[in-house]
Amino acid sequence: MTTKELVAQIQKKKSFLCIGLDVDLDKIPSHLLKEEDPIFAFNKAIIDATHHLCVSYKPNTAFYEAYGLKGWKSLEKTIHYLNENYPEIFTIADAKRGDIGNTSTMYAKAFFEDLAFDSVTVAPYMGKDSVEPFLTFKDKHTIMLALTSNEGAFDFQTKKIDDNELYKHVLETSKSWKNSENLMYVVGATKAEYFTEIRKIVPNSFLLVPGVGAQGGNLQDVCKYGLSENVGLLINSSRGIIYASNGNDFAEKAAKKALKIQQQMKNYIK
Amino acid sequence: MTTKELVAQIQKKKSFLCIGLDVDLDKIPSHLLKEEDPIFAFNKAIIDATHHLCVSYKPNTAFYEAYGLKGWKSLEKTIHYLNENYPEIFTIADAKRGDIGNTSTMYAKAFFEDLAFDSVTVAPYMGKDSVEPFLTFKDKHTIMLALTSNEGAFDFQTKKIDDNELYKHVLETSKSWKNSENLMYVVGATKAEYFTEIRKIVPNSFLLVPGVGAQGGNLQDVCKYGLSENVGLLINSSRGIIYASNGNDFAEKAAKKALKIQQQMKNYIK
Repeated sequence: MTTKELVAQIQKKKSFLCIGLDVDLDKIPSHLLKEEDPIFAFNKAIIDATHHLCVSYKPNTAFYEAYGLKGWKSLEKTIHYLNENYPEIFTIADAKRGDIGNTSTMYAKAFFEDLAFDSVTVAPYMGKDSVEPFLTFKDKHTIMLALTSNEGAFDFQTKKIDDNELYKHVLETSKSWKNSENLMYVVGATKAEYFTEIRKIVPNSFLLVPGVGAQGGNLQDVCKYGLSENVGLLINSSRGIIYASNGNDFAEKAAKKALKIQQQMKNYIK
Repeated sequence: MTTKELVAQIQKKKSFLCIGLDVDLDKIPSHLLKEEDPIFAFNKAIIDATHHLCVSYKPNTAFYEAYGLKGWKSLEKTIHYLNENYPEIFTIADAKRGDIGNTSTMYAKAFFEDLAFDSVTVAPYMGKDSVEPFLTFKDKHTIMLALTSNEGAFDFQTKKIDDNELYKHVLETSKSWKNSENLMYVVGATKAEYFTEIRKIVPNSFLLVPGVGAQGGNLQDVCKYGLSENVGLLINSSRGIIYASNGNDFAEKAAKKALKIQQQMKNYIK
């Protein structure tokens, strides 16, 4: 998917919501557990009920890997279902991968070719040659961790190298990488004030923003400081939407939660 | 596996060799491609021929994920084969994972419980709460990236925060984390001179050292600066061993390469 197509979808749906499919068998409605593939059954219901309210889904690969082969199969079924039924959706494999060059190419193939995701999240620690292999794929997007929403973000990301925090250094440096136009960035919503600084470095890049809701971020603040000319934000909510109810009405209740967020978002889209 | 058991195995085999199982279908002997599971068939032959010369195997998960479900199945069969037939071997899932707390717990479950690896590699960028969930597993080891062997290591890892490079800051900070005795570190062999500095910070920790061979590192230098009282090194070689030949004799040739390295290593073990 091109960035232009993503922006067009945002304008059409008046939404820049991304729904995180972090599916935990201990948290889904118990009546689904008798299904052959409870995780996929859950995802399918959530997707069917919410696809018109969001522009993106983001399965976190950890939740699938934790169930071994079965979990990987559920992930595969979920991405195929999305690509076949809702091809307009921007899909994100939240995998936070990163390795030396030839190995990063293998990861890129896994997520861009084998699973056919539109994008994948990556970690920056290993630098340029660990990320560039992802950037060579046409119309695919690489979403690099910049400033995360967890407490540990302050351990290294906000430490100063010369006069700039590490996360700013990561943003700045990545702009010089080959095909850097295929980069987006993860920026946690728990620190809305940082968005002003970030927008000075990457004024137009898309930012994937976790931490609105469960992790305490505030939509209004994020929009105030983070919106770009092309919106430039994908705001993720996982647990707050998908676990809105664990009864038979779980998908309906999830849609209500998503609608509530979309109704707030539409005010920020001209 | 406990660290004590790992050290005992090193002493017994007079080896601290780790063999990287980075299996690429384009590089394995073509006669294996007619097998039902060529990747597992390759790994099994390599393991059977080399297990007495090394103390550890390290499948890099990227190479398995690139083949989707089939690849994940080959990984599962490989680790089960190792655990059943060579339980003395220290197994490493080279996955370079890392995410916020509850998600890191899912990754830890995937590799420590579902797949039953002895250890997993993780990335440090997200800090303490992204790594600590891995450290709570008894007799499991978490191998954190410190200084990697690729060119991109110089993008961020060697940049100075106050007076210390980021990778030293990572090493130092991690020592204060809960259950930090379960930490090991990845240190690239292309920069042997750094080992002196690293040993000042983590004198006894095990270091997993990639980059001897294909990436240009030198065994002698690494031993000179990196050995600790308990050896404290796992030296990895992947392509140099497993792709020694692509004929029918591939396993035999791999064993010859491994033996050559083991013969050098025995001189460093008292």
